[in-house]
Amino acid sequence: MMPNTGIFESAALLSDDTICALSTPPGVGGIAVIRISGKEAFTATETIFKPLGNSLPLSRRPSHTLAYGEIYGQDGAVLDQVVVSIFKAPHSYTGEDTVEISCHGSPYIVRKIIERLIESGCRVAAPGEFTRRAFAHGRMDLSQAEAVADLIASNSAAAHRIAMNQMRGGFSRELADLRGQLLKFVSLIELELDFGEEDVEFADRSQLVALSHHIEEKLTRLADSFSRGNAIKNGIPTIIIGETNVGKSTLLNRLLCEERALVSTIPGTTRDTIEEIVNLQGVAFRFIDTAGIRPTSDEVENMGIERTFAKLDQADIVLWMIDGTQSESSVRELAARIVPRCQEKQLFVLVNKCDLLSSEQISAMCRMLADMAISSEHILQISAKNNENIDKLEAALAALAYTPETQNDTVVTNVRHYEALVRAKESIHRVCQGLAENYSGDLLSQDIRETMHHLGEITGEITTDEILTSIFQNFCIGK
Amino acid sequence: MMPNTGIFESAALLSDDTICALSTPPGVGGIAVIRISGKEAFTATETIFKPLGNSLPLSRRPSHTLAYGEIYGQDGAVLDQVVVSIFKAPHSYTGEDTVEISCHGSPYIVRKIIERLIESGCRVAAPGEFTRRAFAHGRMDLSQAEAVADLIASNSAAAHRIAMNQMRGGFSRELADLRGQLLKFVSLIELELDFGEEDVEFADRSQLVALSHHIEEKLTRLADSFSRGNAIKNGIPTIIIGETNVGKSTLLNRLLCEERALVSTIPGTTRDTIEEIVNLQGVAFRFIDTAGIRPTSDEVENMGIERTFAKLDQADIVLWMIDGTQSESSVRELAARIVPRCQEKQLFVLVNKCDLLSSEQISAMCRMLADMAISSEHILQISAKNNENIDKLEAALAALAYTPETQNDTVVTNVRHYEALVRAKESIHRVCQGLAENYSGDLLSQDIRETMHHLGEITGEITTDEILTSIFQNFCIGK
Repeated sequence: MMPNTGIFESAALLSDDTICALSTPPGVGGIAVIRISGKEAFTATETIFKPLGNSLPLSRRPSHTLAYGEIYGQDGAVLDQVVVSIFKAPHSYTGEDTVEISCHGSPYIVRKIIERLIESGCRVAAPGEFTRRAFAHGRMDLSQAEAVADLIASNSAAAHRIAMNQMRGGFSRELADLRGQLLKFVSLIELELDFGEEDVEFADRSQLVALSHHIEEKLTRLADSFSRGNAIKNGIPTIIIGETNVGKSTLLNRLLCEERALVSTIPGTTRDTIEEIVNLQGVAFRFIDTAGIRPTSDEVENMGIERTFAKLDQADIVLWMIDGTQSESSVRELAARIVPRCQEKQLFVLVNKCDLLSSEQISAMCRMLADMAISSEHILQISAKNNENIDKLEAALAALAYTPETQNDTVVTNVRHYEALVRAKESIHRVCQGLAENYSGDLLSQDIRETMHHLGEITGEITTDEILTSIFQNFCIGK
Repeated sequence: MMPNTGIFESAALLSDDTICALSTPPGVGGIAVIRISGKEAFTATETIFKPLGNSLPLSRRPSHTLAYGEIYGQDGAVLDQVVVSIFKAPHSYTGEDTVEISCHGSPYIVRKIIERLIESGCRVAAPGEFTRRAFAHGRMDLSQAEAVADLIASNSAAAHRIAMNQMRGGFSRELADLRGQLLKFVSLIELELDFGEEDVEFADRSQLVALSHHIEEKLTRLADSFSRGNAIKNGIPTIIIGETNVGKSTLLNRLLCEERALVSTIPGTTRDTIEEIVNLQGVAFRFIDTAGIRPTSDEVENMGIERTFAKLDQADIVLWMIDGTQSESSVRELAARIVPRCQEKQLFVLVNKCDLLSSEQISAMCRMLADMAISSEHILQISAKNNENIDKLEAALAALAYTPETQNDTVVTNVRHYEALVRAKESIHRVCQGLAENYSGDLLSQDIRETMHHLGEITGEITTDEILTSIFQNFCIGK
């Protein structure tokens, strides 16, 4: 890949000082790795490091080799025995000469080695600066660089898969393909403009119509994948709703128990909802427990219920819990409020306390729910308390996330990408309209160029220092 | 160095399975390193790793080289892009074939890679197991192995220096030298025993007397260094004592402020003392703040004061704070209780609130303290509140720790070593006595062998599985 040559990024390239940072997590451990990148990486390391056994200078050793030796303190005493990895430009993560010092995992030693490197002319790296340099040297495009941070933060199989696909360039290839098609398109139209007086048509308008609709469709699909992608990254919002005392909290605790190690708590935005992230079969779900709903004329209580429904509107999956022993009228009453709001959502009805019901009662309950157009696959008889059928519920939830699409398609998880895609979609939509209404070539060309610009923002062909700074400042130090 | 061949350790050597563990600190970071060691290190890695660019199997690549490639999940999808370090036996930390996988610093990815390695036949390493294998394969002796843990835990220049010296074999060389001298000694005596009937004397008794006294002296010096070594490792116990309201807590806060980043809190053993570790000019001090002492006939309060004096007895350094405006009689009264208990300690008198005193008052105070045989170098006029002369106090304290001895001599920091040295010292003392009283050669020989045995316990020539287990279980996982 060629180095990116945007104005701002080429300015960043001029800053060719040598940077260093601890790349492994902070704290005490067996080993720690300090990364050094830049023109002086070998010289700076050699100032403080003496190889044992083989005295060849680092800069004269082959790339991708290891050197064992000692780091010396300012007083000449041995600071640590280390292994040094040598990566020669451009065959390194950053594309620059790079050294990785693998030292003992002592915060004291790490601090001392970094102090020594600074004395030898290095500068402490800013967050994400190694990856920013990798981008600047064309080792990866911007969406790939962003995927590095997503990959490190991913804590479920689904989020990991999306980030890995993006880092390996799946998304970039798709965008490059779209840009390539647009470029061919706009070149023909601009060629027509050169022959402006002659009213020639190099670009077959019917082909252009087909192509621009195809591109609009693709961009729409990518932009639409964001809500799912974002949900996979941050946990699919899944609300648990129902009357008071139907067992909502028991269910949540049950789901948490299954995967306690992977659970984290997000403070609810209102005091009456609790949110918990649970990893079920490789997919993160953000379960939202709500205060119980009960028919009431109390104004204050009704306000609380309205808040619950507002939460429901933000969820992708709704788990409506029914206490199996509830009266038919109360179920119908609640159904009238819940079902119409779930047209675009996945609604499951969980008939809890099923161990207390006779088979006739269960059949009657199912018939009533079928009347409300709730498919039998989406009705589960469970007992949260006795852990009955909770595994079936988990499997059903996980299956929702594993649509064939998710497995193979590109899914957008990044807000910045989503916004650029929406802008690109608007531009290409104007192209489609222009073609339908026989706009002149220069107007079409302008909208196509705008589409390309917005796609270029994603991969970083078009960028500003401000955008880069805001992207990389969220990285961890040392990456 | 030859492999250690103690009975128990050779049994451990038979356990030649392949182990793996995360070697960097847990948590999120730029990169994480997973270490794999044992006969199947290359095979197990190759099951899940595909190099990019160069398809040569890891086992056929040269040692100390790096391979870039991808780790695959069980489903065949890419789990991560990694760099793999190859170390071939015996040229590795453990002395076995070793691979280090440098992956992205995501706990999810680390867990998945370790799961994959287990599927490929690896076992998760016990704490310290890599280092235990290094010892078993003769890559380091036991005292060096123990120093690895001390090195990682060291958080001051002094503790770091002692651990580094020990890890590099300084202590081991000293012990090997002593054992060598003893071996020569005992060989001559045992040769005499072979000629038992003939009453020959191969070993010149006067030389033996000189040698055994020399060794006893050396062992005494090493054992005596323990209290200082232990203090350096855990912080030199420094008590702040004085009447109520003389500014003891202000002083402690002042000392903490200077090095806030390096401060940790140890919960006091009684509710009326506070302990804080402060790193001053590369030496860790454990400051013990005490409840104020005031002359009282109250029995309960006197019990509290007794506790303060008990703490004083455990300290190496005593900072007795005087409020400059205190009456002469009250200073004399307290001096009578403090000074006699500080014969073997470093006592400093800190005249606080010196900014409130006239030069005549100060002179009078110094004259009175000189009467109590307190040298003027050990009297400091400070103002804790206004940060006056606190730097002088810090320099004086740091200077105490930096005696020339500390810089060059071997210092014992390990309780196990100390206990073995004490036992060795007792044995060699019996040798000295035996020589003085003309004991027979076989008795002398027995005591010399015992001395050698105890020295061998330190370096691990003599060891048991139980001792090894108790040593390595305190290591971190992955080292």
